[in-house]
This record gives sequence, C-alpha cells and structure tokens, in this order.
Amino acid sequence: MAGKGMGERVRADGRLPDENRKIRIEPDYVKTCAGSCLISVGDTKVLCAASVEERVPPHKRNSGDGWVTAEYAMLPGSSPWRVDRGRARAGRSQEIQRLIGRSMRSVVDLSKIDGLTIYIDCDVIQADGGTRCAAITGGYVALARAVNALLAEGRITESPVREAVAAVSVGVVDGMPMLDLDYSEDSVAEVDMNVVMTGGGRFVELQGTAEQTPFRKSDLNRLITLAEKGIRELLEIQTKYVGAK
Amino acid sequence: MAGKGMGERVRADGRLPDENRKIRIEPDYVKTCAGSCLISVGDTKVLCAASVEERVPPHKRNSGDGWVTAEYAMLPGSSPWRVDRGRARAGRSQEIQRLIGRSMRSVVDLSKIDGLTIYIDCDVIQADGGTRCAAITGGYVALARAVNALLAEGRITESPVREAVAAVSVGVVDGMPMLDLDYSEDSVAEVDMNVVMTGGGRFVELQGTAEQTPFRKSDLNRLITLAEKGIRELLEIQTKYVGAK
Amino acid sequence: MAGKGMGERVRADGRLPDENRKIRIEPDYVKTCAGSCLISVGDTKVLCAASVEERVPPHKRNSGDGWVTAEYAMLPGSSPWRVDRGRARAGRSQEIQRLIGRSMRSVVDLSKIDGLTIYIDCDVIQADGGTRCAAITGGYVALARAVNALLAEGRITESPVREAVAAVSVGVVDGMPMLDLDYSEDSVAEVDMNVVMTGGGRFVELQGTAEQTPFRKSDLNRLITLAEKGIRELLEIQTKYVGAK
Amino acid sequence: MAGKGMGERVRADGRLPDENRKIRIEPDYVKTCAGSCLISVGDTKVLCAASVEERVPPHKRNSGDGWVTAEYAMLPGSSPWRVDRGRARAGRSQEIQRLIGRSMRSVVDLSKIDGLTIYIDCDVIQADGGTRCAAITGGYVALARAVNALLAEGRITESPVREAVAAVSVGVVDGMPMLDLDYSEDSVAEVDMNVVMTGGGRFVELQGTAEQTPFRKSDLNRLITLAEKGIRELLEIQTKYVGAK
Amino acid sequence: MAGKGMGERVRADGRLPDENRKIRIEPDYVKTCAGSCLISVGDTKVLCAASVEERVPPHKRNSGDGWVTAEYAMLPGSSPWRVDRGRARAGRSQEIQRLIGRSMRSVVDLSKIDGLTIYIDCDVIQADGGTRCAAITGGYVALARAVNALLAEGRITESPVREAVAAVSVGVVDGMPMLDLDYSEDSVAEVDMNVVMTGGGRFVELQGTAEQTPFRKSDLNRLITLAEKGIRELLEIQTKYVGAK
Amino acid sequence: MAGKGMGERVRADGRLPDENRKIRIEPDYVKTCAGSCLISVGDTKVLCAASVEERVPPHKRNSGDGWVTAEYAMLPGSSPWRVDRGRARAGRSQEIQRLIGRSMRSVVDLSKIDGLTIYIDCDVIQADGGTRCAAITGGYVALARAVNALLAEGRITESPVREAVAAVSVGVVDGMPMLDLDYSEDSVAEVDMNVVMTGGGRFVELQGTAEQTPFRKSDLNRLITLAEKGIRELLEIQTKYVGAK
Repeated sequence: MAGKGMGERVRADGRLPDENRKIRIEPDYVKTCAGSCLISVGDTKVLCAASVEERVPPHKRNSGDGWVTAEYAMLPGSSPWRVDRGRARAGRSQEIQRLIGRSMRSVVDLSKIDGLTIYIDCDVIQADGGTRCAAITGGYVALARAVNALLAEGRITESPVREAVAAVSVGVVDGMPMLDLDYSEDSVAEVDMNVVMTGGGRFVELQGTAEQTPFRKSDLNRLITLAEKGIRELLEIQTKYVGAK
Repeated sequence: MAGKGMGERVRADGRLPDENRKIRIEPDYVKTCAGSCLISVGDTKVLCAASVEERVPPHKRNSGDGWVTAEYAMLPGSSPWRVDRGRARAGRSQEIQRLIGRSMRSVVDLSKIDGLTIYIDCDVIQADGGTRCAAITGGYVALARAVNALLAEGRITESPVREAVAAVSVGVVDGMPMLDLDYSEDSVAEVDMNVVMTGGGRFVELQGTAEQTPFRKSDLNRLITLAEKGIRELLEIQTKYVGAK
Repeated sequence: MAGKGMGERVRADGRLPDENRKIRIEPDYVKTCAGSCLISVGDTKVLCAASVEERVPPHKRNSGDGWVTAEYAMLPGSSPWRVDRGRARAGRSQEIQRLIGRSMRSVVDLSKIDGLTIYIDCDVIQADGGTRCAAITGGYVALARAVNALLAEGRITESPVREAVAAVSVGVVDGMPMLDLDYSEDSVAEVDMNVVMTGGGRFVELQGTAEQTPFRKSDLNRLITLAEKGIRELLEIQTKYVGAK
Repeated sequence: MAGKGMGERVRADGRLPDENRKIRIEPDYVKTCAGSCLISVGDTKVLCAASVEERVPPHKRNSGDGWVTAEYAMLPGSSPWRVDRGRARAGRSQEIQRLIGRSMRSVVDLSKIDGLTIYIDCDVIQADGGTRCAAITGGYVALARAVNALLAEGRITESPVREAVAAVSVGVVDGMPMLDLDYSEDSVAEVDMNVVMTGGGRFVELQGTAEQTPFRKSDLNRLITLAEKGIRELLEIQTKYVGAK
Repeated sequence: MAGKGMGERVRADGRLPDENRKIRIEPDYVKTCAGSCLISVGDTKVLCAASVEERVPPHKRNSGDGWVTAEYAMLPGSSPWRVDRGRARAGRSQEIQRLIGRSMRSVVDLSKIDGLTIYIDCDVIQADGGTRCAAITGGYVALARAVNALLAEGRITESPVREAVAAVSVGVVDGMPMLDLDYSEDSVAEVDMNVVMTGGGRFVELQGTAEQTPFRKSDLNRLITLAEKGIRELLEIQTKYVGAK
Repeated sequence: MAGKGMGERVRADGRLPDENRKIRIEPDYVKTCAGSCLISVGDTKVLCAASVEERVPPHKRNSGDGWVTAEYAMLPGSSPWRVDRGRARAGRSQEIQRLIGRSMRSVVDLSKIDGLTIYIDCDVIQADGGTRCAAITGGYVALARAVNALLAEGRITESPVREAVAAVSVGVVDGMPMLDLDYSEDSVAEVDMNVVMTGGGRFVELQGTAEQTPFRKSDLNRLITLAEKGIRELLEIQTKYVGAK
C-alpha cells in the first residue's frame, strides 16, 4: 500500500480510510414495545426493540438485581442468499447476541431494575457488514428509550443507565487499516476487529480475529485508534435520540 | 345493536362498519432480495420479502414445475407481550404460513418458474390485528415485484402470475358484521373470518371460526359481501405497486 | 357435467352426489381412558379417546374454567405411503388438531369443568379421506361419554356439553358438488371445504380451499347446503352413542 | 408362599401360575399397509402394522441385503395416566422398539428382501402389562402376512422368513414364578424377565431385571422353563394367521 | 471347535477362553466431583464420575427416598470411526445408561439418601468392547467413593450401599463360550450376553442377544457360569478402591 | 494495589503475577484416534483428540481445500456444579469451539489436506479456569501428531502446519494484571482477555471482555505484554511433543 494513506479516498464507496458510513436513526419505529429504533449504517439496517417483562431469569432470582439480555437474528430477505430461519438462530447468532447482551449490561446498574428483564431484540432487515456493531449502537438507543418510558410510568425511580455504549468494526484490508467495513471490505479483510466502547471512552469488548494472516501488535494499536475515532462519532449521534435522561 | 347500521361510525377508531383501515405500501423496502414491500394496514405493519432460489423441493423435482412457499413470523417486539422466537415458529404460525403459501400459489402458474422456488417471507413488525391478511396482500406485491425482476434479468420469459390476490378479515362484533377488524375488535369478536379473493373476484380461501358463538348461514352471507367490498379496494391499491406486468 | 345431476349414481363407489359414506361407531373401544369410540366413515377409521387430567394449562389457571384440547396423528400404517411419526406431528397435523380442539370447545361450557382438562386424542388407523371430519364427529362421542363418566363419578355435577357437534367435507369434483369425499375424490377436487356444525344447526368452522381453481359465491352456497344435509345425518347417528345426558 | 404351588389358582384373575392370558388375533385390521393384525393378550391390545418401502438404510446400501426395523409407541389413551406423545417416543420406547426389531431380524434372511425395508409399527391401544411381548408376537404375524403379500405380488420370489418368533414375560411375584404378568402383577414383581423364542425352540433375547431384589440362578432356570411353555402356546396360535408360507 | 477347550490360549490376545482382560482402576481421577475413577479393562477406558445434587426427580418428591441415575456417552475420539456427539446421545446410549442406573440402584437403599440425587457419569475415552460393563464396574467404585465423601462430610449418617455390583460380557465366538469379549471378538460373536451381579453372587440384570443365531438353553448355562467367574474377580479388585465402608 | 508489584507472590497459589501454572502434556492418551494428548494446566485438564475423516463440509467441496474444525464440551463431573450434557452443547460451548477451530485453521494450509477434515475434540475433564486456552494449546499438539501420522501413512505428502499456536488468558484482578487466571481469580476478575498467538509471535485472536468495569487502553497494553510472555513458554513446551515435523 506504499503511497496511499489515511487522507485518500481509496474505498469503493468513496470514503476515506478513517470515515464511518452514513448513520441514520429512526426512533420509536415500533410502538408496541417499550423503546425502539431502526438504525441504518450505510446499507445495513437493524431494527432494535426493547421489551420489558416483570420477571428475572433463575440465576437472578432474589438477588436484588434485574437483568438485561439480547437476541439477534437476520431476517431471511436481509441477504442476497436467503437466510434460513433455523440456521439464523444457530452458533454465530448466539455468539453475537451474547456480545450485545454483555455490552448493554456493562452500562446498566442491574440493582436499579430489580424484578425486571429488559430484552433487546435486534433483527437485521438488510445486511451490508457490521450488523453486530449497528445492533449494539441502535440497541443502546432502544434501551435508553425503554428506560425513559419506565421512569415516566413510575415503574423505576432512578435511571439504571450509567453511560452510553456504541460499537464499530475496524479491519485491515489490502494492508491498510480501515474504519467501519462494509460487506465487500469485510469479506476480503485480513484482520477484522469489533470494538465496543462506552461514553466515558473505555473498552467493554475487543474481538480481533485473523483467520488468514496473524497480525502484529503495531496493527492492533492502529486499529484501536481508528475504532476510538469512529465510536466517538456514533456516541454523539446517539445523544440526539435518548432524551433527557 | 338495534338502531345502529352500516352507515354509522360506531367503531372505536371512528370507522364505518364497512370501512377498511388506511393502507400504505412502501415498495423495495429491502434491497437485498428480489422483491419486497412494507405494508401498513392501520397500525399493523408487515415486512414482505420475496427471495428466489434455484432449486425446488423434493416433491417438485423433475416435474416441470417450480414452487412458491411462504414463511410467517412475529418479531418479538411486535406485540405488547413480547413474542418468544421459539413459540413464534410453532403451530399457529405454521398454519398461517401455509395459508399464505396456498394463496400465492393459487394465482401462479408453477410451470412458468420451472427450477425456481420463490420464498415469501412475512415478518410482522407491529401487530394490531389482521396480520395474516396484510401478509397476503403485501406478499402478493413482493411476489409480483420479484417476478418483474426475474423477467428483467431474463431468468424467466413469461410472467407466471395469472391475477392478483388479496385478503381481509371480517367478523361479527357485538352482533354487527364489520370489515377489517383491528386487535381490539378481533379480541371480542363472536365470529372471525379470513377471506382471500383474486383479482377476478373468486375465492381462494375462506376460514370462518366461531369459538364462542356458532353462526347462522345468514351471517355468513353478510360477512362475505363485506369482505368482497374490502378486498376490491385492496386490489386497486396493489395495482400501483406491481408495475407493467 | 351437463346432463348429470344430484340424482345419479356417478361416484366410483356407487354413491349419489349428496350421499354420506356408511358410518359405524364402536363405543368404549379403549377402556383405559374416560370415554372413547372407534369411528368408521367408509374405509376411514379413527380412534377417538378422551382422557381427563386434574390440571389446566397456564392461561386458564385461576380463571374458574377448565379446558378441552385435542391431538391428532396418523398411525404409520394408516396410509399406503407409510407415515413418518416425526412428520406426523408437524404443521398439517397441528392445524388439524387445533381445528378439532376449537370444535369441541364450541359446545362446552368450560366453567362447568373448572380445574379439569379433557384431552381428545384422535389417532387415524386407516385413512381414506375426511379424517379430520371423522375425528370431530367421533371426538364428540368420546367427549360426551367421558362427561357422562365424570357425572357418574360425581367429579362434576352438571354436564358442560351444550349441544352436539359433527363435521363433514364437501367439494367440487369434476365440476359437480359432492358430499363426504373419499381419498380418490379429494385428491382431484377443485374445491375442498370442511364444515363443522352444531346440533342446533349453526356453524362453528368453515374452511374452504381452492389451491387450483378459485370458486364462485354460488359454488359456496351449494356446498354449504350439501354439508348441512350430511351433518344432520351424522348428528342423528351420534345420539345413539352418547347416553342420557 | 409355603403351601402354594403351580397347581393353584392364586392369581387375581383366577389364572394358574403357569397360564397365559387369553390371546386373540384379528388379521388384516388395517388394509392400507402390506400386512397387519390387532393382537389382544388379556386386556393388552397392540395394533401391529407392516409397511414396505423400496429403499434401505445407509448401512445396508449395496450390501445385497434388505432391512427389517420396528417402531413402538403407546397411544395417549392406552393407560389410565394419559401418555404424552413426546414422552412416548423417548428412551424406554426406543429400547423396546430396538428389541422388537432385533427379534424380527433374527428369523429373517435379509438377503431375500434386497432393496426393501419392512417396518413393523406396534401401537399400543390398551396397556395392561406385557405390551412389548404382545408387540413381538403380533409383529411376527404382521410381518409374515406382509411377506405373503410380497410373494403374491411377485416382488420377492422366496420367503425370507426362516421360522416363527414369539415372546412372553415371566416374573417372580410374592416369591412365586409366574407366566405372562398383567399390569397389577408386573408392578409388584421382584424379578421381571422378557423371553423371545423362535419356532425352533431357541432363544433370541433374554432380558431379566431385578431392580429391587437380585435373583438366584435357580430362579432363572424356573422362569425360563415357564417362558418356554408360554411361548410354545403362542407359536401354535400364530400358525392359524400366517397362511401357507 | 472340536478339539479346542477352555484350557487353550485360542484368543487373538493370548487369553484363555475364561480369562478376563487386565483391569486397572485409578481412583479420584477427577477431583471436582464427589467420587470418581478411571477404569481400564484391556484397551477399554471409561471415566466414571459421581456427582451429588440436593434435589430429586419429580417421581421421588416427598417420597422419603433419594435417587441414583447414570449417563453414558462415548467421546468422539474413542473409536477409530469418530463418534458424532449428537448420535452419541441417541437410542443405544440411552439404553445403556438405563442399564447402568438400574444396576447402581439395585445395591442402594434410596431411603438413606433422602433429598439427594447421585449422578454416575460414564464417559468412554477409548473403546475396545465391553464399555457398558466397564462403566458398571467402575461406576460402582465412583458411587462408593462419593458415598464415603458424603459420610465424611456428615451429609448422610449411614451408608446406603448394601453390597458391591460389577458386570462382564460373555459370548459365543466361533462356537466357543468366552469371557470378557474385546471388540474384535464382540463383532463376530454369535451370542452376546451382559451379566450384572452383586457382591452376594445374585443377578441384577441379564441381557442375552442373538441377532444372528438363536441359542440353546445349554449355551445359556455355560455362559452364566463363565460370567460368574469373571465378575467374582472384578468384585475382588473393586474392594481395594472403595475404602472402609 | 499500591505497593504491590509483578515481583511479589500475591496469588492464592503462591504464583507471581506473571507466572504460568504448571503445564503437563501426556501425548497419545487415546490410541483410537489419529493424534491426541491430555493437557494439564494447573488443575485444569483437557483431553484433546484429533480424528481424520475422508470428506469435507459442503462449503469446501471441490475447492481444492480440506478443513479443520473443533468441538468443545465440559464433561458433567468436570465442575463442582455438575454440567448438564444438554447445556454443555449450547451457546457458550459453541462460541468456544468456533474460537478453537479458527485458531487451528490460522496455522494450517488447507490446500495440503485436500479431501480431508481434521476434527479437534476438546473435552474438559477437570475445570479450574482457562479451559479454552488449554484446549487450543493441547489441541495444537493433537493436530500436529495427527498430521505426523498422516505423513507417516503417506495420506498426505507435505505438512500443512505452518507454525505452532498456543493460547493463554490474562486479566485484571483486584486492579493488578495477571497471567493465566485460575477459576478463583477468573470469577472475580474485572477484565478477562484470551489471547491466541502463533509460534512467529503474531496474534490470531484477541478477546477482551469487561462485563463489570470497562478498561483503559493502557490496561490493554499491559495485558498483551503479559500474554506474550506466557504464550512463549507454552510454545516451548509444545515443541517437545510434536515430533520431527
């Protein structure tokens, strides 16, 4: 990649290497649940819906805590290769929904939602790379809106949300570190890393994978710097949709 | 109901007894699949996506025919009582998706899509009654758009679609026959009937159920007349979204 | 079909178009359960067994009501093409057993069996068309006999059964409406309709399907008239097997 | 049990210790499959149906052999405690159907049914102890009748059946060895043994179990002698129903 | 086998017909559970682990009894043909684990472990024939060691173990009765029998199978005599590993 | 943690913060499969077995490549709280086995095992933290030994293994970064990170999680340095067990 740098528009869609795709958040997309939004990150669209139930899973009974969990699925038409609903709930989806759940819980004080479980359902409507990161970024908006509804209804008296949380993918494509990979980039990336960061700038999750070519410590540092830049932008966009909390 | 009639706005949302809810169709809602639309019938929203695969199920192999099938599911946040994904695929959903599949096949000449399977995926985003009828009405739009795409790509040479198809629910609420029940009406209806009709005005499916109070032949005739009126309006709206075919 | 009419013996087995197959009911076929019968409708044989359990499903707990539900399965040897037990419990069977359950509940006052669930198990021993209708007609006999046993044992004090219920299939074969289709007729029928009617002559369920050729309103009316005739005969036969209730 | 012996009618139903229950075999009970019978052993009734398919399981492909296998299930109403259909297919049923399958295969020359699988479906209609033994005794009749049908249709040219096979249960109840236990005896037996024997008087299977009280070698010998007597009677009854083969 | 007898070393591994393979027991192989051992019988290795939980299954609630149950599985690498984990839990494994469970319960007084369930997990690490018998022999050691631990911790006050239990397979190979078949012998045996016997020399289970060639009563007696000899040796080895109880 | 540092033996088991637990590798633990070892890391014991099958999964058919995959499970007795076999195959185990599989594939040239699938089965015999890392480190040994066997048998002509791979967990406990956490440390760690590194010192996977307290970039760098030290030691131990390759 000699001669090419961060300042050049080398990507197929004309973005700079350190540029996020266009983000759009439509709040209250589904009115039947406590909080929701439809998040678009470029051509990736994820419907994030937060539902509240008055019960907790067995391991939290009589603990003084509530629970936050997530489910993730791709709708069959969300990919050019139709996604089988059965397969959509298998291994990879479970791994992703566990990541989303941990990310949400990392910013929630569970003792302030004692007796409640908040489900964050993330359904991918259109997939073009980065669906799990979009789900985390949009899932936080759905969560925060549901919390506002619980406060407004008097079902909780204090917000359990300590800070915001958002996520982005970064990777090395053709030797160059890039921010927010779309599907065409992700499918040829040598290294792929998902980073989840809080409003306070600290890390919640870091998942770097190199199935093809192992990576050096120096690559790691450059990718993390890129991710920090991208997530800070996402955190700023989120603030417009989460109300006075 | 003495003294009240078809001409009075007796319904909670101000509709006349023989009035459909407001219909809205957003075509091409999902670009990853062959044809799609988001249909809204009042507060009921169903995402209908048609995907095409180059294979047919075992019972159609070497038959000279292709196949059209449907899947139906409610997204977890689509109801005020969160819908479990596991339960969402059980008995009732299967019964509904079989109905949608038969309705689509009733207007398709399978011999003109030899070697292909068209999947109509209907995912309920927001439920307020009549989701299976909305899925059929919107599913036809997705199907017709996918067929247009197949024709444009030259994968088929002649449209397999013989005529349009749409569906509406009718029922007896508080003794009065009504068109297009919303959830609040459906949950107290004495009789509930789903009617599927083609562009040519003939019936494909008729499913009338009276779990509480069995109904008379005269009720049946009044309900069918109402359904015919409602479906004719839906068929007219569909024509705007299915192109030149 | 010009020139042929209701008065001619046009059917393969010599029946008139508006003639039921021969019905035979063997009560108390299984002594281990509360009530049972083996019903034969021509060559179709269904074993109907009613069992009573002292508990109700979650949605009826503390409601003052009991519950009536049904299960339906085809035994592997009941068809010339062996029926896989796994497949026997899938989609189509579930749809049928839901229909049987609703039909039974339509004539039962659930508040009079508070705390009890009555299961109507319908197992097809030999299938020659019309199995779901035979299951409803025989299922009612099993239900009524089980209710008599509960009364005799003093477990309930008043019969919860309001009226009888029976079912028949009708269809259009080769352009002619016919009553009680056997398998050879059902497999070539243009329209197929299952009708469930009570002792009082009102409808509980009406399921008409035209996968091949959509049907006219006039067809519908002729089919319903045929079904009424057929069901009245079944209701009369049932009375011999349900005791003094 | 001092003072009581084989010659006294000590059993609740008046039988001698070494007396079988009354056997009844109704051949051709189901006409849809290749061969069948309904066998009654006292109040135990099992429907045995043999179906033939033109394929063999993977481990027999291109082996020159066909296959014989069995399935066993209790119908829900066959017991005073309704049998759940799900549970009916679990561990114990699988163990029983493997026993039935091995018993059938022990008397069949698989090379004479190359390319065919014969399924023996045993469905318990009424259970009063000894259902697996009744299934083997009746299953053999169904198998032999199906083989006769295959010969008559010219699908095979030589009978694969080498000899007959039948089974009985024996046990120690209240210290006394007894033949053909009914449910009331089986549920209090100290030792329970199922014996499968061929027409030639040799053993195919022997399954003795003592969950409560381990047994001596002398008990074993007395039980086997009893079983031989019982099975010889069953073999004689079978001959009336298996035709000229 | 004329001319060959019990005194000749006719077996592939040089053993006499009535000779067990070499037994090795490594106690406390797993420290995380209450009692365990790794048992080797020739090249067959089974890890037996006893775990204790403070609850009983539904059928033992409020009965004054505890429960003992077993699970059996083959690890994927334990056979030259990799064992699929899914298949490893199917029919045959369930039948084996039921046998192990019954064998353990036959020597335990369940009333002395009221409120407790003891699980005996038997995982086959390397399979060379006789795995179920090794699991019973080693399972008893794990059980006895767990009971000792419960006594030492004061969770029970009296040992529930009445006597020891062990198992061996015997069979007829090439016409000759043999003790403790390895895989190469088992796969060609005409008759295969598993015998479970207690320290007191009485039988708990006897499962003889002849899928190929039915066997005579005289064969049976010779096999049982062989099994008694083999099990007595196993019982003696067990005593070194079960402590003072 | 002021005043305490890397040079002090602050850990419960007396280790320094940057000290690995004692490693022991027993090669060829299971002889039935192509390559195996039992690895102990402190009290964590994992059985790693490599099996070879002559087929590839659908996505690799006719690709010129073979495949390497892994399965991971905890045996029921491996934890003080018995591990349910059903649960043992659910979400978390699948996530772990996908990680092991990716790690193995990162050092294998799949084109050199065309037509073959190598399964790495990792069964946890005793769990005391770090089981997935032990599985990767031991899994590589099993893989390398199986490859040697394939070379020796002439089934492949060139080793597909490019370099070694090993893994270790690191974490922040009580504010202090530590190497190779045991269960008591892992369960109270604020940050937990699994690092997979190759013989060449480059990263294959990096999974850092902070469910409780998000972490800083500086923490990340210190943890990675610790992991590099630990893995270099593991790589050195592995070389003794992987032969001449």
